[in-house]
Amino acid sequence: VADTTRKAGTQRPGGRSARVRAAALAATLEELAEEGYSTLSLDSVARRAGVHKTTLYRRWGTREALVLEAMLERVSERVPVPDTGSLRDDLLALAGAAAATMTTPEGEAHVRAVAAAGSHDSALAAANRQFWEERLALDAVVVERAVARGEVPAGTEPRPVIEALLGPLYFRLLVTGERPDRRFIGQVVDLVIDGVGRGRRV
Amino acid sequence: VADTTRKAGTQRPGGRSARVRAAALAATLEELAEEGYSTLSLDSVARRAGVHKTTLYRRWGTREALVLEAMLERVSERVPVPDTGSLRDDLLALAGAAAATMTTPEGEAHVRAVAAAGSHDSALAAANRQFWEERLALDAVVVERAVARGEVPAGTEPRPVIEALLGPLYFRLLVTGERPDRRFIGQVVDLVIDGVGRGRRV
Repeated sequence: VADTTRKAGTQRPGGRSARVRAAALAATLEELAEEGYSTLSLDSVARRAGVHKTTLYRRWGTREALVLEAMLERVSERVPVPDTGSLRDDLLALAGAAAATMTTPEGEAHVRAVAAAGSHDSALAAANRQFWEERLALDAVVVERAVARGEVPAGTEPRPVIEALLGPLYFRLLVTGERPDRRFIGQVVDLVIDGVGRGRRV
Repeated sequence: VADTTRKAGTQRPGGRSARVRAAALAATLEELAEEGYSTLSLDSVARRAGVHKTTLYRRWGTREALVLEAMLERVSERVPVPDTGSLRDDLLALAGAAAATMTTPEGEAHVRAVAAAGSHDSALAAANRQFWEERLALDAVVVERAVARGEVPAGTEPRPVIEALLGPLYFRLLVTGERPDRRFIGQVVDLVIDGVGRGRRV
């Protein structure tokens, strides 16, 4: 998996290999958006990208590895880890960017493919698990910073906080079919930060 | 859609029609669990239930209507709306029962089919929307009772609370592929009730 903290082109400027990689990843996202996951293959991506398919087989081996890298890069571009100095604003930024990405055609196709497959497609499931391990570890930093600032108690586990933030957005997209809109994101962030029982202390 | 508040058999005891309905709904859940959603049809359910397929066509018309009724009945049996006298215990009970149901083979097959289809299968999407309208309205009662007891502020919107509770469980099942276990349920309930920032007030 590529080093996703490196901005494309900043450390490995140009070069044929970088151009092929960029073309393949872009073609993967286009293919996902237009055709969906079920028919996506290294061959179909190679055709769309205008690169030789053996290049893709050599570099990625499986469509799962290719889709994982394309989605990781897309998500790290579009859902950067925010650092506003306030947990509430960080969570609002994170949830807003996640909702925007999951409702793009390629984001939605990817998420629905993962949800449909479950553990039946073990290569996809393994790639997806790795994606989320990395992504949740990145996102956890906003909670760790809030602990360091004294906004939340020392010893707070970051990961359930991120899952409680992102879960309701995916619930709307995948389960109830509603849009995770700005109003809903605000309500979820309020709950995650203050809880529903805050009135008891007033 | 059947009156889901009525317990099977308590108001309409026996009768051929009730037996056919029970057999068809049970066969639908079996078919979902064993074969999945994609091949389920009124014909396949009729064969499994040992009833005439015209009976199913007359009563339900589409497989979406049949699956909706089967899932609604299953969920109202397995995920009753709790009334323990405490919001925390009600949310724990609700989340525990929801997690147990969504991880049964038929529950998981149903949820993955809905997530995969999105709005492409408009009959399934419409049936699913109706299911969740009803279910979220039922579940909202636990928050309304907490408001009445003074546990949470007057004017609290119940629905986002229920979505914040259930969302992370579905997120694990459908998105990250982790199990929504008891420890995680406890963490989500704590967040929904008290929020992560509770330390600020100590």
